[in-house]
Amino acid sequence: MSHPVTPHDLQSFEKIAQIFKAFGDPTRLRLVQALRVKPKNVGELVSEVDSTQANISQHLQVLFEAKILTREKRGTATFYSIDDHIIQPLCELICDKINRDLENQNGAGFTPPDFSI
Amino acid sequence: MSHPVTPHDLQSFEKIAQIFKAFGDPTRLRLVQALRVKPKNVGELVSEVDSTQANISQHLQVLFEAKILTREKRGTATFYSIDDHIIQPLCELICDKINRDLENQNGAGFTPPDFSI
Repeated sequence: MSHPVTPHDLQSFEKIAQIFKAFGDPTRLRLVQALRVKPKNVGELVSEVDSTQANISQHLQVLFEAKILTREKRGTATFYSIDDHIIQPLCELICDKINRDLENQNGAGFTPPDFSI
Repeated sequence: MSHPVTPHDLQSFEKIAQIFKAFGDPTRLRLVQALRVKPKNVGELVSEVDSTQANISQHLQVLFEAKILTREKRGTATFYSIDDHIIQPLCELICDKINRDLENQNGAGFTPPDFSI
């Protein structure tokens, strides 16, 4: 018989899922990658990721709420920065997995995007 | 000026996001945790995670498509297993992050669920 799940455990699963979910969107991964070199404002991110301001702002909010990004007002603009060094090892683990899956299918190797900070 | 994003990069972001998204749901994390000891069939998982068969089957399908679980027919039942050892280091990274975030807020420590295989 398995260990019964407590309300504390359920809350822990919610917290963990929130962070995975924040990374679980290609536009959000592109924003994280675009921010790895230096802080950027929404305008810079809109032109770099090639989307609408409304869309980018919404994705930035999800990343901010999951505490993956921080933000800071400078004059009239808000600058976003990566607040955490888990991104590179996380993405390396996932990319290694994708490579293994592709090798098992005799597929071509997977060249991951650069997430180094 | 930043490196232009190629169609190959976009496809890579999609692949990485799919795996993060598969982990980005508390019920799916509970299923992964429930399977860490041994393969289980849908009926066992339904009673362990305390949900409906339709809901559990749907979540198992997402985890199977992301190649996080494998499945095998044994007689009339389908058994699911964890196919990958990235789960423990992935969840450790995320739990360490949650702990750091809580410490920064002077909050209580976070006791993660056990994902060891």
